[in-house]
Amino acid sequence: MSAPIDFYFDFASPYGYIAAQTIDAVAAKHGRNVNWHAIVLDANFQSLERIRIPSSVMRSDYIRRDVERLAAFMDVPFNTPSSLGLHTEMAARLFHWFNDRDPEQGRKFAQAVYRAYFVDDRNIAQGEVLQDLCATQHISPDQLQALSNDSATRARLKAEIDLAEARGVFGSPFFIVEGERFWGNDRMPQLEHWLAHGPY
Amino acid sequence: MSAPIDFYFDFASPYGYIAAQTIDAVAAKHGRNVNWHAIVLDANFQSLERIRIPSSVMRSDYIRRDVERLAAFMDVPFNTPSSLGLHTEMAARLFHWFNDRDPEQGRKFAQAVYRAYFVDDRNIAQGEVLQDLCATQHISPDQLQALSNDSATRARLKAEIDLAEARGVFGSPFFIVEGERFWGNDRMPQLEHWLAHGPY
Repeated sequence: MSAPIDFYFDFASPYGYIAAQTIDAVAAKHGRNVNWHAIVLDANFQSLERIRIPSSVMRSDYIRRDVERLAAFMDVPFNTPSSLGLHTEMAARLFHWFNDRDPEQGRKFAQAVYRAYFVDDRNIAQGEVLQDLCATQHISPDQLQALSNDSATRARLKAEIDLAEARGVFGSPFFIVEGERFWGNDRMPQLEHWLAHGPY
Repeated sequence: MSAPIDFYFDFASPYGYIAAQTIDAVAAKHGRNVNWHAIVLDANFQSLERIRIPSSVMRSDYIRRDVERLAAFMDVPFNTPSSLGLHTEMAARLFHWFNDRDPEQGRKFAQAVYRAYFVDDRNIAQGEVLQDLCATQHISPDQLQALSNDSATRARLKAEIDLAEARGVFGSPFFIVEGERFWGNDRMPQLEHWLAHGPY
């Protein structure tokens, strides 16, 4: 099988949510796997190519409408959450904990977090909400508490973010395949062209 | 015929150049006309929704590659110019002078400016280059000189930019149809969906 696609996403990103609904199917169509990587863009993406869109912009009228329209266009369920730009570090740390053990479990958790935020308008920065989402993954409150205080999960996420930054990731969703970077859902047709026909 | 599409572009924007190669055909397919509007984004787009991408970003590795790849994907001739972020006010003022007299002449001039910049790597901020481009439009050096010093063409452009800003335009290319805003080439499929099926 050819090289996998690296898929970077932030749980605070509605565009990341929309990409998460389609990327596996797109990749499978071209015989590729996808490696999912939760990152936190606010954490340290201040250097390199500074295209990062500030959270104030994510609350702008244009972006609100753009996301709603994109979701309708892609036929993906979406409800604008009452609070945009939530703190996503804990969700990202839990994602890697699941994902390192079983990528399928990682995906399921990621989809549950995204659905909670962008469909059910739940506050995924809150411990009790994450607890609910973990419950379906057979994680007890005690285990979640332990993971939350675990310096290893914090270091794991930080290393992931550092690696993403070193690879030139600066937005969500972000795709890398064979060293080529694609930023945004709207580059999906170009990504598909790459997968189908090779570099251009 | 249904409402026209307003197409806003900056001559410094390679994405605007690429949009200029396709928008008329897309609109015609759906029985629409296009009104072309040259604007200068650096002039006063500091307020409202501040998504404006700074010129330093336009020189980033990612954007350079993104533009090249998009042009290849769209099968549009493109050569990265040696100088990005040129001053485009004079070209935009001349565009409106032509366009107000004859939209076809306006389009021809706009395409000539874009081609000079993004195919032939000419400096469209220079008077002699604009003179060359005007020559094919039957404008003499004396006429060009007069237009360059004309406060009316300056006021005309400023009003256009003020109007664009009031309508919520903040990037290039930017499309408005029936009050709905679409930013970027990558929203063209959504614009087409709107034209084909109405609001969604």
